[in-house]
Amino acid sequence: MNAHPSAALIAVGDELLSGAQADTNSAWLARELAQHGVAVETIEVAGDDEPLIAAAVQRALERSELVLVGGGLGPTLDDVTRHGIARALARELDESAEALAEVSAWFDRRGVVMSDTNRRQALFPRDAHILRNRAGTAPAFLVEHEGRVVVALPGPPRELSAVWREELLPWLEAHGWTRTPLAERRFYLFGIPESLFAERVGAWMARDADPRMGCTVRDGTLTAALRARDASRDSLAALERRADEFRARFAHETYSESEWELEHVLAAELLARGITISAAESCTGGLAQELLTRVPGISRVFRQGYVTYADEAKQDLLGVPGELLRAHGAVSREVAEAMARGAARASGSALAFAITGVAGPEGGSASKPVGLVWLATVLDGVVQSSERRLPAVERDSIRRVAARTALFLCWKRVRDASAARD
Amino acid sequence: MNAHPSAALIAVGDELLSGAQADTNSAWLARELAQHGVAVETIEVAGDDEPLIAAAVQRALERSELVLVGGGLGPTLDDVTRHGIARALARELDESAEALAEVSAWFDRRGVVMSDTNRRQALFPRDAHILRNRAGTAPAFLVEHEGRVVVALPGPPRELSAVWREELLPWLEAHGWTRTPLAERRFYLFGIPESLFAERVGAWMARDADPRMGCTVRDGTLTAALRARDASRDSLAALERRADEFRARFAHETYSESEWELEHVLAAELLARGITISAAESCTGGLAQELLTRVPGISRVFRQGYVTYADEAKQDLLGVPGELLRAHGAVSREVAEAMARGAARASGSALAFAITGVAGPEGGSASKPVGLVWLATVLDGVVQSSERRLPAVERDSIRRVAARTALFLCWKRVRDASAARD
Repeated sequence: MNAHPSAALIAVGDELLSGAQADTNSAWLARELAQHGVAVETIEVAGDDEPLIAAAVQRALERSELVLVGGGLGPTLDDVTRHGIARALARELDESAEALAEVSAWFDRRGVVMSDTNRRQALFPRDAHILRNRAGTAPAFLVEHEGRVVVALPGPPRELSAVWREELLPWLEAHGWTRTPLAERRFYLFGIPESLFAERVGAWMARDADPRMGCTVRDGTLTAALRARDASRDSLAALERRADEFRARFAHETYSESEWELEHVLAAELLARGITISAAESCTGGLAQELLTRVPGISRVFRQGYVTYADEAKQDLLGVPGELLRAHGAVSREVAEAMARGAARASGSALAFAITGVAGPEGGSASKPVGLVWLATVLDGVVQSSERRLPAVERDSIRRVAARTALFLCWKRVRDASAARD
Repeated sequence: MNAHPSAALIAVGDELLSGAQADTNSAWLARELAQHGVAVETIEVAGDDEPLIAAAVQRALERSELVLVGGGLGPTLDDVTRHGIARALARELDESAEALAEVSAWFDRRGVVMSDTNRRQALFPRDAHILRNRAGTAPAFLVEHEGRVVVALPGPPRELSAVWREELLPWLEAHGWTRTPLAERRFYLFGIPESLFAERVGAWMARDADPRMGCTVRDGTLTAALRARDASRDSLAALERRADEFRARFAHETYSESEWELEHVLAAELLARGITISAAESCTGGLAQELLTRVPGISRVFRQGYVTYADEAKQDLLGVPGELLRAHGAVSREVAEAMARGAARASGSALAFAITGVAGPEGGSASKPVGLVWLATVLDGVVQSSERRLPAVERDSIRRVAARTALFLCWKRVRDASAARD
């Protein structure tokens, strides 16, 4: 076995090859594995086809010690992962009386009669180790095979994560398949374009640099990852030096070293300082509040918010003066600021933000093109506002970046205010 | 060349193997290709590593006629897709003066100085055909090689889709790589569990059935796809017969045959009939309104909505009586109905919905467990309400299913009302 075991992921489903669904399970599994020192070397998608699944499993076994197959364990006849794995390993499929009892108990608990097609969920390759699935009906399993391990996991994300957490990870730990991961430092930056970032990091991103640096951009956030080349003391020291240099160079743009989700970073500040928040959204239609309320416990600082899509709604709910709307239009500094003030006033919150913009595809003009967004924040009565001109390519991406920009600006204000106090 | 060309997709990026990001580009490309008669046979992920990318391209060329590589064309030094493809095809990389001029013109238009690292974006394998990228700086390219085609596409989704639409698809059509797709019928059903569905379709989903049927479940929607085995008249006739049978059997659950997104299905009804809508959301924090406002033009029927997270907000903004909250709690039929009535009254809309539930992970009790959601709709003053007990596995999934349930219930009400009128 290598110092760090390698894993291959196979996502099963015609819906992935047809594009009806994206493979999000593999990314989730890769993150979990990395945290336990297992490096994912390949990710592959296979259709709902026994020979294709078998071939993918065999290919994966040539390269990796752990092969995790996700999906295709359901009750319907197009679910053939168990058959594909059995074929790849040249084993029979046996019905497990114990698993059958589990499956039917699951239905009993819900007062539903088990259908016959669910019986196939109790089939396993011979000598498989069954992994219980408390979140659904399909039991998962693993097979030890010539010093390697092939695992079958359910496709529904919540079942996959439950089986991973409760069954597979404990088994991997108990059987010596996990490691302390290679040292890594991550930085999450908001609002810096990738080409400017490349210019400012220069040779830090060279292919032979130690630590190695990678970066990726999504929804306004640039994620920079520094990875130690190995576990040596020199490599770890180089990583820490580079991380310190990075912090100094990008102090202005970095909002976290552990958390991509801006809503969690902002919520942590708000909850720690007891700062209440409200929101007034126009073009983002509730997205920024939706992000914020993903955070458990946010009710301690967030009580209410407004989706004011129409001009009249901005007047009625937020008290934006009609003359302001007529003089400057709904997408303007003046209206953004009035919306934020109105949300703070109506909700009684210390902090409020407002978003108003042209999300498109219609509604743009020469002076106010699609992608123009005005943002305002009010903290303890002091208003700030700024404009963004986002690439006018996609309504959804304009909305996502606009909502996250508002969260970033709120975070900056809270941080700046507390820095000024200290 | 086969009757239907086959494609292999390779998504490039360490961030995909580490799980920092899911590969959503491949699903998008697979859908586009399928619509033009090209079947995706494999999807693979490769890290930012020249030899690994080269090996993946070579493997893909053994199986497929079209190889589409997405990502790794950016300006940073870890972007090595062009090098990997050149290596796989044993070609030199040349700098294109024309492409360099395009890249620097892109920066000029934005009044930004082009950085030196952007020069590498003008490198291409010898004899490559350059695909212009009007949405970003990285030009894409394709290489014809021994009767097959290798394409490199940019990783950012909006650049990928722009290059596909404006450059690659027209090229594929002009060079005879597209086909009329195999006939398929899709059905989108809401709220039916997969095991019950399997029971009710029975042998329709057998592996050797013609048409072949597959199904997949996400966020409360079950997608059933019927696919003709071939382009023969018999196969097409069998597909139409089965589609008719399906419509009759699942008339109650099917909300669309063309559109997964419930917000578009609902919005089409609202816009066609001029029915105004408003919303009051508690546990979903604005998600249902965010979904609805994804639809361009929705401002004609949606003017405003409320995120009433706290009890006081339900009282202040929606006029929910305090005694109702005290007597029944915020998650109850009575409060859901009062919220919906309040939203309709305050906004003056014909239709309004309300969502109140326990999204967890905290806040559940024996009588009101995590996953309990109450939903209410008001249409022209008539209120309806219902309860859902969603699997208490994940806060986000409870919220997603709850928001989509509200959209489905609104759609049902509008449909039922118009059926009653007809």
